[in-house]
Amino acid sequence: MDKKISDKVINRLTLYHCILTDYIEKNIEYVSSKQLAALLKIDDSQVRKDISVLNNSGKSNVGYIVKELKTSIEKTLGFSKNKKAFIIGAGNLGTALANYDNFQHYGLNILALFDNKKEKIGKTVNNKLILDIEKLPNLSRKSSVDIAILTVPRQYAQQIADFLVAADIKYIWNFTPAVLSVPPDVQVWNENLMGNFLQFTYNI
Amino acid sequence: MDKKISDKVINRLTLYHCILTDYIEKNIEYVSSKQLAALLKIDDSQVRKDISVLNNSGKSNVGYIVKELKTSIEKTLGFSKNKKAFIIGAGNLGTALANYDNFQHYGLNILALFDNKKEKIGKTVNNKLILDIEKLPNLSRKSSVDIAILTVPRQYAQQIADFLVAADIKYIWNFTPAVLSVPPDVQVWNENLMGNFLQFTYNI
Repeated sequence: MDKKISDKVINRLTLYHCILTDYIEKNIEYVSSKQLAALLKIDDSQVRKDISVLNNSGKSNVGYIVKELKTSIEKTLGFSKNKKAFIIGAGNLGTALANYDNFQHYGLNILALFDNKKEKIGKTVNNKLILDIEKLPNLSRKSSVDIAILTVPRQYAQQIADFLVAADIKYIWNFTPAVLSVPPDVQVWNENLMGNFLQFTYNI
Repeated sequence: MDKKISDKVINRLTLYHCILTDYIEKNIEYVSSKQLAALLKIDDSQVRKDISVLNNSGKSNVGYIVKELKTSIEKTLGFSKNKKAFIIGAGNLGTALANYDNFQHYGLNILALFDNKKEKIGKTVNNKLILDIEKLPNLSRKSSVDIAILTVPRQYAQQIADFLVAADIKYIWNFTPAVLSVPPDVQVWNENLMGNFLQFTYNI
């Protein structure tokens, strides 16, 4: 990546991408910044500014060309960079995320799920195996996986995080409502659902 | 709320709240801004600035009093304001969210789940009933529920959103990877998982 794109712009670009995916399914060929802005209830000057960070926006005299704009977002945000990850915890949330086929379009490949419940091990979710958590350190090194998606119950979150760190996992996408203590070379992204909800409902 | 608190501050305050909840379970009485900062890998001046928006921070000469700081965050962010919501879609994600007991501590009360699959209707998840989606308009009005948590498959998202809007739902917490078209008086919060992931992995 040449230029640094802010988190808010990345967020909106992925939302435009969702809209464009939908338009392609509906065989819609062109889209205007006004249409994108109306769906997200933002100003269309903001949309044009966001799109200006892309190398090739697909701008034509009847609007942006849907397919070109979509490809351009994918290139800029690095969807083609294959990122391999494991899901830790094969409960409802882990299963839901494993079923989320959209991830693959964004370059996120879930290779397997891990759990410690014997009755789950060997089963599959969306063609991905549920493996014994004890197998993780060996497999993460063999398969060069350094991203873990953590969906275990809160009370085990830190203990499992320590285990992941010892297995050379460098990025933890944390869906648990626990704040994890990790060494400086490990990054945690807190999927802070309640924080998001409170931002949303703050003025209700 | 008297003063407007920014989204980022709300987000961090909920993370401090997670840490404080954990400290209370461990019978830890005091916490410093340095400790909170270290766990979130941010600067402790940021923590002190965030805490300064609270009315009573629980500051003592040996650090913040954990219980007081926790209560203060709860008051400032309005955790005691009871917000009733329905979950739409009793699949893995809907079930995971219904099982997320943490929501209740933040004032979010899930009253029921809705689905259209006959075999699911009448079952319970975490003591919440799964009801026929057709019953929603009547129940949302009777119970004054205007928040819906949308977890249906992407291809049904817009159709269900239209149905929710017709049932006077005013706030949609959208977990589907679809951008919804809604009237001006309805607010959508997109839980843009891929956007979040890409922000996180942008530099990997």
